[in-house]
Amino acid sequence: MKKPEKITARTTDFAKWYIDVIAQADLMNYGPIKGTIYFKPLGYKIWENIVRIVNSYFVRQKIENVYFPLLIPQDFIEKEKKHIKGFAPELLTITKVGDKSLAENIYIRPTSELLFADYFKAEIAKNNILPIKLNQWSQVLRWEKTTNPFLRNTEFLWQEGHTIHSSKTEAEQFAKKIARFYKDFLENYLSIPVILGKKTNREKFPGAFNTYTVESMMQNKRALQSATSHFLGQNFAKNFDIKFKNKKNETQIPFQTSWGISTRLIGAIVMAHSDDNGLILPPKIAPIQVDILEFFSKKNPEVKIFAKKVAKILKQKKISFQIDDSNEQIGFKINNSEVHGSPVRIEIGPNEVKNQQICLVRRDTREKIIFNISELKNKCPEILRKIQIDLLEKAKKRLSNNTVFVTTYKELKQEIIKGKFVIVPFNESAKKEAEIQEETTATARCIVPRTTIFNLPQSGISIFSGKKTTRFVLFAKSY
Amino acid sequence: MKKPEKITARTTDFAKWYIDVIAQADLMNYGPIKGTIYFKPLGYKIWENIVRIVNSYFVRQKIENVYFPLLIPQDFIEKEKKHIKGFAPELLTITKVGDKSLAENIYIRPTSELLFADYFKAEIAKNNILPIKLNQWSQVLRWEKTTNPFLRNTEFLWQEGHTIHSSKTEAEQFAKKIARFYKDFLENYLSIPVILGKKTNREKFPGAFNTYTVESMMQNKRALQSATSHFLGQNFAKNFDIKFKNKKNETQIPFQTSWGISTRLIGAIVMAHSDDNGLILPPKIAPIQVDILEFFSKKNPEVKIFAKKVAKILKQKKISFQIDDSNEQIGFKINNSEVHGSPVRIEIGPNEVKNQQICLVRRDTREKIIFNISELKNKCPEILRKIQIDLLEKAKKRLSNNTVFVTTYKELKQEIIKGKFVIVPFNESAKKEAEIQEETTATARCIVPRTTIFNLPQSGISIFSGKKTTRFVLFAKSY
Repeated sequence: MKKPEKITARTTDFAKWYIDVIAQADLMNYGPIKGTIYFKPLGYKIWENIVRIVNSYFVRQKIENVYFPLLIPQDFIEKEKKHIKGFAPELLTITKVGDKSLAENIYIRPTSELLFADYFKAEIAKNNILPIKLNQWSQVLRWEKTTNPFLRNTEFLWQEGHTIHSSKTEAEQFAKKIARFYKDFLENYLSIPVILGKKTNREKFPGAFNTYTVESMMQNKRALQSATSHFLGQNFAKNFDIKFKNKKNETQIPFQTSWGISTRLIGAIVMAHSDDNGLILPPKIAPIQVDILEFFSKKNPEVKIFAKKVAKILKQKKISFQIDDSNEQIGFKINNSEVHGSPVRIEIGPNEVKNQQICLVRRDTREKIIFNISELKNKCPEILRKIQIDLLEKAKKRLSNNTVFVTTYKELKQEIIKGKFVIVPFNESAKKEAEIQEETTATARCIVPRTTIFNLPQSGISIFSGKKTTRFVLFAKSY
Repeated sequence: MKKPEKITARTTDFAKWYIDVIAQADLMNYGPIKGTIYFKPLGYKIWENIVRIVNSYFVRQKIENVYFPLLIPQDFIEKEKKHIKGFAPELLTITKVGDKSLAENIYIRPTSELLFADYFKAEIAKNNILPIKLNQWSQVLRWEKTTNPFLRNTEFLWQEGHTIHSSKTEAEQFAKKIARFYKDFLENYLSIPVILGKKTNREKFPGAFNTYTVESMMQNKRALQSATSHFLGQNFAKNFDIKFKNKKNETQIPFQTSWGISTRLIGAIVMAHSDDNGLILPPKIAPIQVDILEFFSKKNPEVKIFAKKVAKILKQKKISFQIDDSNEQIGFKINNSEVHGSPVRIEIGPNEVKNQQICLVRRDTREKIIFNISELKNKCPEILRKIQIDLLEKAKKRLSNNTVFVTTYKELKQEIIKGKFVIVPFNESAKKEAEIQEETTATARCIVPRTTIFNLPQSGISIFSGKKTTRFVLFAKSY
């Protein structure tokens, strides 16, 4: 049996802490090729839970799932220069099959806009029906210089939604609606508060007209881009010559969107909530919500009977659980439960049986809660709900305590050094953004709407030009 | 709006009929690279239904889902010669990233035995816990010379299960158990009767000790290998140097299995059941079980009200349905329902409303069944169950009517020409199998157990050697 190993403290080395937490939690092993990982059962179950919840929203929105090829031909690559320029250095290229060289290179999708454009063109030519709203759950590959499990992988799992509409407004509204859904999903299911804003031109998706982004703050105050939704305008439609006939029988060019979340969210969950004892999972996404630990059950068969009774109650309440009835020591069992992130554990020994008591320990606060077993059916769901909310509130406090609004570049630099999220009045060129990045390593995360949690003024003075502006931009160091 | 197009008759050209049916049913479009397809919403939903049912069985068997990399490194490829020899000519090879050549080639998985072996080695070295039972839902790529939508694609979706066990018996029994599950699944959910047998050495999976196969018969009497389960022995474990310690602390080599079904099953469903009017789907796998067709509803609002009432009843009975309330002609609507394969349609016009009658048409028999709406809640589930069984019975009849047992090579040849499944006493070399294939194009589909539907004798005389044998082999032309 595996012995618990030490997890590096967050304050000592946050990057090492992250790797220790995911290793101890059995979320993944490294794959044989740089930047690839083996998703282990617990890591993959977290993703399956994300898929289930997000997919049910898509179904309600009448978005239909499809599966499109992994392979992109040479001539598609040549069609959309702006888009491909953004991905070219990361493209995995197939030049051979067996011993034989191919006449033309084939590329592995880094994203599938080109394939969806090709598909939309044929479908609309045949049926002239709009909108078409599609999604696929798949993987994409990008050869990244620096890789980090879940956060930046050569191959990662994601969903990519693609829609095509007859009107600009409809398409743009749809892209915004999906971005708002992503925000709700992160906050209500993953307990991760986010800032929903628009990317600057410098930071937007290659080929997009607008990119809406959902930015979150990790425990080391770094930003993590957690979901994006792109209004693509007519860019791909023009390059692929997609046309439809409107009600007046006039030929028109349609408008597209694309949007996605990925297994990067597993990394976000880990870095937003976990502590120096290991993984902490929000109850709504945890594959196992309750660990039932049997203590001394080999010598005390009544412990096993009591554990079964507890299990039966949890099952009735549709709470997921697992029973640890192994021969391991108490300390090992507790540690094992803690490193795997189950939101709650219930410890059962001869004393609990004698007193017909539940000894429940919250993983997040490590608070011990003791009550009669008759209360379990109400208490347990209530405590799980409380944990879900408390994790969000804790993360919200971190975000608001570490986000500042300043009005000069000098202050921006000072606050970035302190590790803050910094909002400034900023109506400047991409060149100025590049200069800020050069000097501070921080990037423009998004243009922040004034409707967020931060009290922004009606307008401000742009930090370089000195001109009045209503555009506020969030800068931060990021993953 | 798309107009119904003609479907080639099966008797005219079966291959063209197949392509027409899947095109009319909107199951797929061709992808831009040879042998790739765009899975359209209906085609993908059939796969989603297969995934849901099969996955729930895996969960009950405590098989855990994982996701492993798409990419295989050069040094893995060199480890298992027998296995790789079988796939080498089909391997897609990545030699470049962006403009830069890679130091070592990277291969796209044609199957993942090598990756699972690598993973098992590390896990067992760490924990020494057996068995490990894993599965992944993913895609694999094989560059095929001849491609056919769903049946043989460069890229296809599948599940691949991989287990590792401490004992040979446990592993082999597990491989057999999964094969039996596949048989049950095909018969009970897809209404496709199958022959479960063992592959000959010539036909088994590259690197396997034994391959169990599930063979079905299409309407043109061709065999389709529909699922396989391999007992891998210690082959991969030896090549990857996987070891565990038994209870006596002795170092031992474990035993493995692997098994899978793929989107080829979509092709099997189409070719087993559909007719010259288009797709026919078994109710248990149909994304839409009932099409509700409104006739003249624009001028007769009561038709729409009646359709809603019908929909409400179907919803209560958890029957999936869709309403066609378009402005199309009656003939178009009926044709549209037929080509998309929904097992049942309910036609609602002013007459039905007046008589409070349901006019239900079975897709498979085109039988019209009329009854009062009050009976719908019982009748509709009953009819769907009946269709499920009738499709299986019809296919069973086809299989038994077209499978013959003969005792000489001459008869074998005659029956193969007639398009039959032919069982012969056969205890011969791979060379003899090759000769038969050369002369007849038929291959050994499997060694048939005497427990199948066919009345085989206790023993026979092997067709070439003239020696007594209890080994009976099924030969047939196949996909």
